This record gives sequence, structure tokens and C-alpha cells, in this order.
Amino acid sequence: MSLKPGRTILSSTISKTYVEEIKNKVEALKGIRPDGPLLVGFLANDDPAAEMYANWTAKTCESMGFRYELRTVPEKDFLEEAIIEANRDDAVDGIMVYFPVFGNAQDQYLQQVVSREKDVEGLNHVYYQNMYHNVRYLDDKQQQKSILPCTPLAVVKILEYLKVYNNLLPEGNRLYGKKCVVVNRSEIVGRPLAALLANDGAIVYSVDVNNVQKFTRGEGLKFKKHHVEDLGAYSNELLQQCSADADVIITGVPSETYRFPTEFIKEGAVCINFSSSKNFDDEVKTKASLYVPSTGKVTISMLLRNMLRLIDNRQK
Amino acid sequence: MSLKPGRTILSSTISKTYVEEIKNKVEALKGIRPDGPLLVGFLANDDPAAEMYANWTAKTCESMGFRYELRTVPEKDFLEEAIIEANRDDAVDGIMVYFPVFGNAQDQYLQQVVSREKDVEGLNHVYYQNMYHNVRYLDDKQQQKSILPCTPLAVVKILEYLKVYNNLLPEGNRLYGKKCVVVNRSEIVGRPLAALLANDGAIVYSVDVNNVQKFTRGEGLKFKKHHVEDLGAYSNELLQQCSADADVIITGVPSETYRFPTEFIKEGAVCINFSSSKNFDDEVKTKASLYVPSTGKVTISMLLRNMLRLIDNRQK
Repeated sequence: MSLKPGRTILSSTISKTYVEEIKNKVEALKGIRPDGPLLVGFLANDDPAAEMYANWTAKTCESMGFRYELRTVPEKDFLEEAIIEANRDDAVDGIMVYFPVFGNAQDQYLQQVVSREKDVEGLNHVYYQNMYHNVRYLDDKQQQKSILPCTPLAVVKILEYLKVYNNLLPEGNRLYGKKCVVVNRSEIVGRPLAALLANDGAIVYSVDVNNVQKFTRGEGLKFKKHHVEDLGAYSNELLQQCSADADVIITGVPSETYRFPTEFIKEGAVCINFSSSKNFDDEVKTKASLYVPSTGKVTISMLLRNMLRLIDNRQK
Repeated sequence: MSLKPGRTILSSTISKTYVEEIKNKVEALKGIRPDGPLLVGFLANDDPAAEMYANWTAKTCESMGFRYELRTVPEKDFLEEAIIEANRDDAVDGIMVYFPVFGNAQDQYLQQVVSREKDVEGLNHVYYQNMYHNVRYLDDKQQQKSILPCTPLAVVKILEYLKVYNNLLPEGNRLYGKKCVVVNRSEIVGRPLAALLANDGAIVYSVDVNNVQKFTRGEGLKFKKHHVEDLGAYSNELLQQCSADADVIITGVPSETYRFPTEFIKEGAVCINFSSSKNFDDEVKTKASLYVPSTGKVTISMLLRNMLRLIDNRQK
């Protein structure tokens, strides 16, 4: 098999571009946080992937001057109280929870228990609602910036790094002319990501097992909100049709067996996988111009940037 | 078949006890709401059950001096904007949404879009969190009362009417000594209901398809929160064992075919069904002392009481 001249770009490479900025801001906080800001992670499941991610987070934190504390909660039912204690503890700057915990709607309840002021992952309802409506500040005076959910934000930053965002276009429209396929429409990543890309001017085909939807920038802009259109039930044919001229294919299917069909990918497309499972076959390299096999390291950088922003908001 | 001398009590009978109180409060609001407070219901699905419930709500509203406006949103994607408009409209006193809309996690997002100040169903995260922690006020000055989710509150009021709550015991412990089975552990009704009953002193067996949990009053009461213990995977044997000396059986299984096994019910138990489907066979009357086949009318009364409380909160 002769590989085409595409390139694989690792998320560790992309995340390096944020190291300097983050380190400088941590340094500037020495006055109030001499030992570095404190991030607390809560683990209440025995998912090895979550533990691995926790270890990564710890290492990344320490390498950039943050303190990281993993709090393991042996009984799931005690997690809520543990979060509330951390909410109230002035020594804690940021809180994250390794989901799934209960694996059902109770997890959505827990997400909202994390104080908005310490929610580094950006899972609070207010942050999501602001994101969907393109609202960038929490207050009328525009002093406190709203937080964006980590993983969708990481994908946006990756697309900026890969020059899919075009700097020559005005901010807020830098994906104009681009078509993207996003396979995943979870409330945590897939739907917000499709909205973010549409808000930046792209046409987005949002795909899940049930159907395919087309996200575009809203016309009326009364609420500065993207527009959604149903394209019909999911089928391989419909996916192939949407992929045929997609400039970007983004996958996030949490399954060891799922693979995006390589033959659907347009020659030279950009391919990004944000799932912790491998969603593209190695042959993706014969088609993709740029291929990012995972996004984890960039996600952690975004999480730390969010934390610095939260500290900044609290000081105001 | 010879029926035992139990009684069937309709929710319409129970709801009558609230009519006078509600009408008087509406009358007292004539100064600011001469035509009555306005409740807006949003319907974005074609579920006939939701439409029936909307018609009921309209009739009940009008009979008690409220105005009710059903706003049908033909495209689900426009529902969020319609809710936000109602949030901002000073003429609207209360908002409710007929769920399911999308039938997935996006519905949880929509629930939180409804302004907390107009959320008559009590679905806002703040109300749930206060309920779980037995927090009764929204503010430190204890002037603004927190709202309780409608359906769990309706079941509590039904248990009060049926004298399962014992007035001779101190408030907050009036279910002391009572054992309850609750078949349903949804985030909307089953789990909050189990917590409410446990907070009032009952031992609650919370049952769903996966497992059985035992809710009791927390001991430490550090966070004034109930305690949850896993009793094991669901099985008919375990359900039979929990039901054997349960004083109250409460069901909420949204299925036309599900029936709670009559033979599991203790002679003289109180049986309540809050599902819109029939969850007990007619033979329940041979076992139950008091049987409440549905809770809808009481739920609407609670919704209107919540609305009056919200108006009261906004005035403070």
C-alpha cells in the first residue's frame, strides 16, 4: 500500500502551542497562589480510561505549575457531598468529575452540582446556553468571560492549528465555505461542537445512529443562534452523500468496533477523532491530508485555560 | 370474587381540598393580575397524552381564575427561542413544557432553559438540589421559598390526605416507622420522591429495572441529606421481599403492559400509581386499604400552587 503524502498530527504537538501562554499566566498568579492553582478531580468509577486520563491530567498540571489532587470516592452516593465540600473550599480553584458515574440521568444532575465558578470542563447549563447563543460574557459589563465546554473547544483549537479556520476571514466567519461531518450528537460534545462550527460559518452535517441534521448559521440572528434542519433517518447512503464533499470529518464514537468508512472520505479531507476509541482505520492516511488520531492533550490544555479564566472571573 | 372493604380514592377528590386555598390567593392577586395569572404551556410533540394533559390543565386553570395559553411549536428546534421569549415576557407568570420533546438528553438541556423564576414544574436544578438537601428557601433571609417538583410533591400531598403522614409526629418525621416501595427511579419523579419520603422519616425501597436501593434519612445530617444503600440487582424475589411488609406501594412505570404483582401487596397496604398507564390490576382492591389509580389532578393543583409561590417570590 503506497501512502499518500498526508500527515498525522498528534494532539501533544498541538497542545505545545498553549504551554507558554498557560505557564506565564500561572506565574502571574504567584501572588495569590504561590504553589500554583489547585485542580481537584473526582473519580467515583473504576473505568481504567478515566484513571489514565486522570494520570495524564496530573502530569500535565504539574508540568505547567498547577497542583492536581485526585479524590477517589469509593461510594458513588457520597460524590455529591464531596463536590459540595470542594465548591465551598476557597483553596480549590477548579473541579472536574470523571464521568460516567451512575451512567444515567443522575450524571446530568451531578454535572450541575459543580459550582459554576469552579467548573473547568464548562459543563454548567449557563455555559452551554451561552455557547449555543454565541454569548461570550457572563455579565452585562462584559468583564467575566463565559467558559466553553472543553472537548468541543479543543476541536475548534485543533481546526485553528490545522488552518481550517481561515485568518483572512473576519472573526466569527472563519469557517465560511467549509463543510464538516460530525459523527456524534451527545449533549456533552457532538451537539455543542456542531453548533460552534456552524456559528463560525461552516455547514455541519451532524450524524448519530438515528438521523442526520444540517447545522448552519441562523439567518435571523435574533438570538444569534445556529439553525438546525433534519435531513432524514441515518443510512450509509446519506452519510456517504454528506461526506462526499466534506472538508472535515470529525468522529466521536465510543466503540472499539466502529470505524468511519475510509471510502467515504474525500481525497485531502481533514480527519479528527475525539473518541478515546480508534474511529479511523490506518488507511485514513491514504485519503486524509491531515489526520489527528486523538484530542486528549489539547482538551487538557483547554481545561487549564478555562481554570485560569475562572480564577480571573472570581477576582473581578 | 369478593372484594375486601378497601376504598378507591380519586385524585379529583383529593385535589378539591386545595381549590379554596388557591382561589383565595388568586383573588388576592387581582391588584396586579386583574384577569388572573398567566400560565403558558409549550407543546412541541404530537403525543396525545400531552395534549390531554394540556386540556385538563387549561380547564383546571380557568376554573380557578388563572389564564392558560397553549403555545404549539411546530418545529422542535424553535422551542428554545419560544421559551426564552416567554422568560423575558413580564406578562407570563409561569411556564411549563410538555416532555418528551427530543426524547434524549437535549430535553434535560431544555428543562434548564425555562427561567427559574417561572418554572412551575420545579424542574430547575436549584430546586432539585434544594429538595435533596432539605433546603427550603432560596435566600439566606428565608423570604423566598424553594419550589418542589410537581409530581413528587403531589404524591406527598396524597399521602398526607390518606393519613399515611401522621400529624402526631413532629414535622419532618411524620413517616417514621413507614416502609414504602417506589417502582420508578427517574430523575424527574422516582428518585426525588424516594428522597422526599426518606427525608420525612420513611424507609424507602427504590426499584428500577436494574436494581433495588434503600433510601433512609441520613444519620450525620451534615448536608441534611438522605442516605442510599444498594440492595442488589432487580429480581422478582427481591421486589417481593421488599413489598412483604411495605405500608405503601407507589408505581410509575410508563408501560401499558406492566402490572405490579397483586400477590406481592401486603393486606391493607396503600397503593398509588403516578404513571399515566394503569400499573395495578383491578384485583388491587382485594388487597389495598386505599387505592389511588392516578395522581394527575393533584399534580395540576401543585403546579398552580407553585405558580402562586413563584409570583410571591418575584414580588419579594
